Amino acid sequence: MRDINQFTITQAVKESFRTEPGSRFEALLHGLLDHLHDYTREMNLTHEEWIGVLNFLYDCGRISTPERHEFILLSDVLGFSALVDMINTRGGATEGSNLGPFYLDNAPRMALGADLGKDRQGAKVLVYGKVTDILHKPLPGAIVDTWQADSSGTYPIQEQEHGQDKYDLRGVFTTDDQGRYYYTTVLPKPYTVPYDGPVGRLLRAGNRHAWRAAHLHYIVRAPGMRAITTEVFFENTEYLDADAVFGVRRSLVAKVRPAREVEALGFTLDAKPDAIIEFDFVLAPEG
Amino acid sequence: MRDINQFTITQAVKESFRTEPGSRFEALLHGLLDHLHDYTREMNLTHEEWIGVLNFLYDCGRISTPERHEFILLSDVLGFSALVDMINTRGGATEGSNLGPFYLDNAPRMALGADLGKDRQGAKVLVYGKVTDILHKPLPGAIVDTWQADSSGTYPIQEQEHGQDKYDLRGVFTTDDQGRYYYTTVLPKPYTVPYDGPVGRLLRAGNRHAWRAAHLHYIVRAPGMRAITTEVFFENTEYLDADAVFGVRRSLVAKVRPAREVEALGFTLDAKPDAIIEFDFVLAPEG
Repeated sequence: MRDINQFTITQAVKESFRTEPGSRFEALLHGLLDHLHDYTREMNLTHEEWIGVLNFLYDCGRISTPERHEFILLSDVLGFSALVDMINTRGGATEGSNLGPFYLDNAPRMALGADLGKDRQGAKVLVYGKVTDILHKPLPGAIVDTWQADSSGTYPIQEQEHGQDKYDLRGVFTTDDQGRYYYTTVLPKPYTVPYDGPVGRLLRAGNRHAWRAAHLHYIVRAPGMRAITTEVFFENTEYLDADAVFGVRRSLVAKVRPAREVEALGFTLDAKPDAIIEFDFVLAPEG
Repeated sequence: MRDINQFTITQAVKESFRTEPGSRFEALLHGLLDHLHDYTREMNLTHEEWIGVLNFLYDCGRISTPERHEFILLSDVLGFSALVDMINTRGGATEGSNLGPFYLDNAPRMALGADLGKDRQGAKVLVYGKVTDILHKPLPGAIVDTWQADSSGTYPIQEQEHGQDKYDLRGVFTTDDQGRYYYTTVLPKPYTVPYDGPVGRLLRAGNRHAWRAAHLHYIVRAPGMRAITTEVFFENTEYLDADAVFGVRRSLVAKVRPAREVEALGFTLDAKPDAIIEFDFVLAPEG
């Protein structure tokens, strides 16, 4: 009979899986086994550390619900979500960033120039820009789907028990014949990721805060183009260099410009802005 | 402000944790980030694969209960539990193996020579041996804590709703003044690990079976010595080369000898065995 030891076990585990040779499943599985077995050997992991890791995952599972995915949060604070976004950004296209937990796929359609902020408190901003392909050709009829927190850092969906409408501060816009989108809204504020669970314990153990830099969420799509999921941040705001989920890229930080430039833009707006944010989205071809 | 990309993000995540320099926590965290970020980059992980892994962990959490720890099972079938056992085996001591999910820490104390099998079906075996230190000096008063499946591969604790006593087929023995333990019991049969959950899905996706080679479980301890958790297997039985949790080591496989040798051993036994199994446990000093 065979014998296995700490150096031969990795190969034995790989061979126990009868995966299709050369398949993606095999590559993913073998790579994971190589890395995690190497880690275990390099660290000389003790039984206490091993069960500590497994119990941490168990606790993540226990706090998770269909509305709260603690494993995504764990991936976020360890930079995996950001890394996957970076790896999957196409050359020339707008960089991707976190989807986050609050996306709704059936937000209301809005006319260009509409006001998402309505009578909410906070600085009112005009957000505008173009959707283009990677050769800067405007894309008319592109879809700009946006959602955001309010000026206290809260998403209306988190405040439904206080009478808020979960579709507030959301809108789906269609670019005009010049590929432009424009609307007004309130400037969002920073907020914390949930830190009352195992991921919060990990952050505290590492003396880390749970704050995200303020941002607007976007999914932008157009026929024949690869959709992007990203976030837009604001120059000179807090946590740009210390975002808890590593969502900030320099290319995603917009300037906040004075309102006096608004007239020159010639937009018909439902509300009068206090400031202006311009951000262009660039989509790469599909496939 | 800083910018991070797929190559600098790993360092950024490490720096976000303000861990004590040179601490074990820092080493464990940095090592894990290095390996898993490298894995993500090497594989060019897609969003679909990333969320697939996170949803798999979510599913493991949802099926877990205080009685079922799907993350330990996952660790088992991927060879991590065995690897940690191997790493933590002391030179000269009996090799460690899986604790498994069915240990109870208050099993009944038994006199040497007792019969754990009672009127159960199956081949009755004498199990005996010595507990020694690594210089082969016998350890009188050592504790041999054992538990096992029956001759159909079931643990009585799994059959409580059918009237079985969860303490059946368990016993805690104390070695005599020659460091010996001896008792009779039924020879256990192979069984499957639970495969009705996410880990079962993984096994099926990899065309793997869920069978464990038949075994007896042991925790052996003595004052001043490092306790060992291990399993004893039987020569020429099924799955020795294909145990689903990689628990088998050649040094843990015992010969099954004929019953005619029993009289020469001179033990006083409560039941008459059909066969004999001899296994010596070797403990290393603590610390």
